[in-house]
Amino acid sequence: TVATSTDRRSSMSNEQELLCIFGTGDLGRSLGQRLLQTGYRVVYGSRRPHSCGPLPERAQVMSHAAAAQSANLVFICIHRENYDFLETLAPELKGKVLVDVSNNVEKNLYPEANAEYLQRLIPGAHVVKAFNTLSAWALQNGPSDANRQVYLCGNNAEAKQAVSVVATKLGFTVLDRGSVSAAKELEDFPLQLFPEWRLPLRLAVGLTAFFFFYLLIRDIISVYIKEKKDISFRIMVSLANKVFPIVSLIMLSLCYLPGVIAAFLQLYRGTKYKRFPDWLDRWMLCRKQLGLLALGFAFLHVLYTLIIPIRYYVRFRLSAITVRENRTPEFDTTMAWRTDSYYSVGILGFGLYLLLGITSLPSVSNALSWREFSFIQSKLGHVTLFFCTFHTYLYGWDKFLRASSYKWYTPPGYMLCLVLPSVVLVLKLLLLLPCVDRSLTRIRQGWERTNPDDDSRKSLLT
Amino acid sequence: TVATSTDRRSSMSNEQELLCIFGTGDLGRSLGQRLLQTGYRVVYGSRRPHSCGPLPERAQVMSHAAAAQSANLVFICIHRENYDFLETLAPELKGKVLVDVSNNVEKNLYPEANAEYLQRLIPGAHVVKAFNTLSAWALQNGPSDANRQVYLCGNNAEAKQAVSVVATKLGFTVLDRGSVSAAKELEDFPLQLFPEWRLPLRLAVGLTAFFFFYLLIRDIISVYIKEKKDISFRIMVSLANKVFPIVSLIMLSLCYLPGVIAAFLQLYRGTKYKRFPDWLDRWMLCRKQLGLLALGFAFLHVLYTLIIPIRYYVRFRLSAITVRENRTPEFDTTMAWRTDSYYSVGILGFGLYLLLGITSLPSVSNALSWREFSFIQSKLGHVTLFFCTFHTYLYGWDKFLRASSYKWYTPPGYMLCLVLPSVVLVLKLLLLLPCVDRSLTRIRQGWERTNPDDDSRKSLLT
Amino acid sequence: TVATSTDRRSSMSNEQELLCIFGTGDLGRSLGQRLLQTGYRVVYGSRRPHSCGPLPERAQVMSHAAAAQSANLVFICIHRENYDFLETLAPELKGKVLVDVSNNVEKNLYPEANAEYLQRLIPGAHVVKAFNTLSAWALQNGPSDANRQVYLCGNNAEAKQAVSVVATKLGFTVLDRGSVSAAKELEDFPLQLFPEWRLPLRLAVGLTAFFFFYLLIRDIISVYIKEKKDISFRIMVSLANKVFPIVSLIMLSLCYLPGVIAAFLQLYRGTKYKRFPDWLDRWMLCRKQLGLLALGFAFLHVLYTLIIPIRYYVRFRLSAITVRENRTPEFDTTMAWRTDSYYSVGILGFGLYLLLGITSLPSVSNALSWREFSFIQSKLGHVTLFFCTFHTYLYGWDKFLRASSYKWYTPPGYMLCLVLPSVVLVLKLLLLLPCVDRSLTRIRQGWERTNPDDDSRKSLLT
Repeated sequence: TVATSTDRRSSMSNEQELLCIFGTGDLGRSLGQRLLQTGYRVVYGSRRPHSCGPLPERAQVMSHAAAAQSANLVFICIHRENYDFLETLAPELKGKVLVDVSNNVEKNLYPEANAEYLQRLIPGAHVVKAFNTLSAWALQNGPSDANRQVYLCGNNAEAKQAVSVVATKLGFTVLDRGSVSAAKELEDFPLQLFPEWRLPLRLAVGLTAFFFFYLLIRDIISVYIKEKKDISFRIMVSLANKVFPIVSLIMLSLCYLPGVIAAFLQLYRGTKYKRFPDWLDRWMLCRKQLGLLALGFAFLHVLYTLIIPIRYYVRFRLSAITVRENRTPEFDTTMAWRTDSYYSVGILGFGLYLLLGITSLPSVSNALSWREFSFIQSKLGHVTLFFCTFHTYLYGWDKFLRASSYKWYTPPGYMLCLVLPSVVLVLKLLLLLPCVDRSLTRIRQGWERTNPDDDSRKSLLT
Repeated sequence: TVATSTDRRSSMSNEQELLCIFGTGDLGRSLGQRLLQTGYRVVYGSRRPHSCGPLPERAQVMSHAAAAQSANLVFICIHRENYDFLETLAPELKGKVLVDVSNNVEKNLYPEANAEYLQRLIPGAHVVKAFNTLSAWALQNGPSDANRQVYLCGNNAEAKQAVSVVATKLGFTVLDRGSVSAAKELEDFPLQLFPEWRLPLRLAVGLTAFFFFYLLIRDIISVYIKEKKDISFRIMVSLANKVFPIVSLIMLSLCYLPGVIAAFLQLYRGTKYKRFPDWLDRWMLCRKQLGLLALGFAFLHVLYTLIIPIRYYVRFRLSAITVRENRTPEFDTTMAWRTDSYYSVGILGFGLYLLLGITSLPSVSNALSWREFSFIQSKLGHVTLFFCTFHTYLYGWDKFLRASSYKWYTPPGYMLCLVLPSVVLVLKLLLLLPCVDRSLTRIRQGWERTNPDDDSRKSLLT
Repeated sequence: TVATSTDRRSSMSNEQELLCIFGTGDLGRSLGQRLLQTGYRVVYGSRRPHSCGPLPERAQVMSHAAAAQSANLVFICIHRENYDFLETLAPELKGKVLVDVSNNVEKNLYPEANAEYLQRLIPGAHVVKAFNTLSAWALQNGPSDANRQVYLCGNNAEAKQAVSVVATKLGFTVLDRGSVSAAKELEDFPLQLFPEWRLPLRLAVGLTAFFFFYLLIRDIISVYIKEKKDISFRIMVSLANKVFPIVSLIMLSLCYLPGVIAAFLQLYRGTKYKRFPDWLDRWMLCRKQLGLLALGFAFLHVLYTLIIPIRYYVRFRLSAITVRENRTPEFDTTMAWRTDSYYSVGILGFGLYLLLGITSLPSVSNALSWREFSFIQSKLGHVTLFFCTFHTYLYGWDKFLRASSYKWYTPPGYMLCLVLPSVVLVLKLLLLLPCVDRSLTRIRQGWERTNPDDDSRKSLLT
């Protein structure tokens, strides 16, 4: 068992703990500097103790065997390819805590995690994986924003406790991830670059590109061909302000569509225990990212709309109309109701949308109970979808009746983008009908259509 | 004592831990599936081992007694109403860890928490309440946003440690809430739906409804009656843009009023140790919710103001004025100063308001010390209230002097909404006077007017 | 060793734990009230047990010695100046847990932390520093936003565990900061008021003041002197809307300049192991605060820009132009392209800027890996700087060619503010050139120009 030397030494507050570091490269040096600053004594193990390059000033250097004998905790800061030479030190490392801080440059380079490999090589030692999610700069300078947490894993609880003590002394928060079989996950974490955002981002880029070219051809190129008028300056704001809301509304409905599909699937199968198809599972897992991207596009749409009155083009056109008319036209009350309503509904929809975004923040969603989170993301979420769709219908109003909206027999952009949200809202309304809702709730509480015996057991089981 | 089997088994990395689940219903099945995925072996205890419905594939099923004997940790996934049958298994469950994951459908259905009842029934076992704040979906699919934390409570530290190990292996973060007497709180948590927001929300809805009808009658119905002109389209934006800022300012002052009342109460009584009246305590506890709702209304007010220039009604009216006048009127510098100042002050007030909102986020407020948090929420908070009130006074300017503002002898909406914030600011200014401030600080540091002996003891006591 | 009385007593759920408090002042009374509410029994130690002022109702009072003997855990709520009298109680306090909750009124009043002093006075007891970051109100009323975490430190692990149990029962989350040598940091924490924001705030105020007076003289005072026209009303919005974006852009470039300087320093020295100069280190540590302040100013700039069309001055001027002209001028397509582009680029820049701000929130940055955080803050950060700079160049366009821009031979404000960001972007472009980038990456991975032997050792070391 690991000697509780950390505790004994700490309680004798005048004597500093001695820690050992194998490896005098980049990471080893940064770690050593930080440990010395915090008040530990550090001894390095090196093959060439007398000529191993610059090390932090107050650290000692010895051979590996000697260094390992003098301390109870050894940081292994060498490449995985060189772990095998550590086998020769197995006698000296017996009963010590080995802290594996290594990272690989790529995922799945090896079948086994580095920490599991090390534990297999030296079964007498207690391997703890820690500190690998930090960069060398963070180790050297202490915690900062993306680097306050240190994830640990290992088989022996006392070894993990000893490493925790060092980590908290360095100012980090420690999260225990379990046994050494969790090491693979810890080694993969620093290599990932937004894995769950890839699909939604590609989708957003694809939709943006599609609608950009669709509207470019319809609005600008067709005018150029038919009327020989160059209105290409309208790309920067007018066209952008059509593409962004269209993509936003489509992505928002893609965020709520899988839930509706899943509900119908459960109703059709009569049970909740059959697994969903893979594509539906993957879709359900990236709903949050779809929603947040849609919120980003909606935010850009709001800003582009609000700068309309300061655009040169708009002011020019308005004053040209005033000059030309030179008399007060009749005040169209329906137009006033329509435009005011559509702005008002749009603002309320965006406000609810922001609320959904705020409750997606990690700290806020952790403070909510499951019932509260579901109320906001599901109920208020569908209300948001409804407001935004209604906003678009009011914008369209009766444009679909006019022939001039259809250039070259293609529908306007806003009509294309209304298809998906309308489908989602209609299906959701169907799910809210009392008879359908009752069946679905029963299925979700565990009832299965094909097995009538379950009802009698319900009183015994949860 | 609980055998540290978790540790021994984990260190022999090829042998998987065996866990037992009582209950083959919804929750039991989801939990079993997740445990099997994570690498545990699972055995179910059931009354009818041979015909108990679909279970996860690789799980075994036995009688309750046999299942309990084979594992050290037993998840109790059965209804509370059936806990009594577990008493018959007390010999087999002696020394085991029983994990109570139950929830009730309503608060206060029973006088005692489920976990306390279970511990009373089987005193030889170690009951740990855990996992009950997660939905079955979260248990099955692993942690996600609102479900990353598992709250534990129980009397025996080693039993809680064993459950922690399982929870972290499943990917959750564990928070220990103390002994089994905390179980009631854990069982109530998933049932709540924004309890501390109820009162502020009702207040906001009430104020909104009141001012909506007040302004509807004053602005629209009165015009219809007097001038037979239908300006009802103004409801959607113009009226909304008066109701929202009024409600926002009133709620912001209701957020700071209890603090001022409490201070005067302490000055009057000459001590800080008498408890506040219940209504004041409840009011002080929902100040954060009042403030955040007020911020939401202020945000809507900002958006409604920014779309003013793209409204059809506004453009129509502006171009009608230009056409009608057809000459340049005199430039009114006072008007320019007034409107620019009132927008500028409004923007700065809203900016500060947003800062208050951001520091209310859980992660940000946890990173601040008490002194920093108080500086922002109290000092900057009163500055925000001042800016927003000044903004409203500048908006009003000299309207109160004109007879036309008073329709049917009622004051304009903005005058009604200025009463409360002005009262709060005046009282706060009184509290800042040096003599008053000195007394209050002394009282808050523990001095009491009625007991002159305390001064001599101050050097000994904190 | 500390008896595990907490565990034994808690498991006998009907018997409440007895805790002792030394000190019957403000903090002692609040703490006692809270402990009684939570279910503990409380006994106070006081010099004058029979006449010591109002205490919570159900608490007992005894002499210090008697109180200390009856409980295992003693809260020390007395001033540090009176710790010496506790020495006389050393025999009764042997083996007990002493919880030091004291705070000083100023930093560095004493060379030693209060907890270390106490431990030195009574070496037989186990001193744990805890609860000192909470205000008395928080202790009395339980956790709220800025007060949910309790930091602990102490030498003995079982003593800290006993205090943790009490803290979690009171509803707090406990973070262990290590041995008693961390007490100084815990005692300093409540006294700080935004230490890392001081320098950026002073810088922001300085820049704002400088540009305010610079533009006041150029735009308003010069017009008054030359044309005798009073346009001072323009201070509130027009002038503010020039000062804020200028300060924002300068501070954003100051946020990215140290990284560029550091890179060139490393290239020049040929190694990453020489420490940076102190001023550069301090600058690098407040980059986040510089960026967040710049975001605040950019947000105000956006709001000030969006209210332009509802300003009386702007409407007056626009309708005056329309009236005066009374004919449609020629439509300037270049002007349309330019203004639309510059709004569009500005909006996209602000959107990215908000994304940077959101990822600075503690909970979001903790959820990102180092690679993800660096991608957003560094790569997307430089893209943001580029967009905002391009936005300002488009705004300037060809103004620099006109003589009227230079009043009294001084350049317009926007030209002054373009210097720094252009320098940063050019230097960053230089760093992206393949040859330079390759050298820098090699240096950052540990290579050093002056020591050619290191290459051969690279296979052994990390």
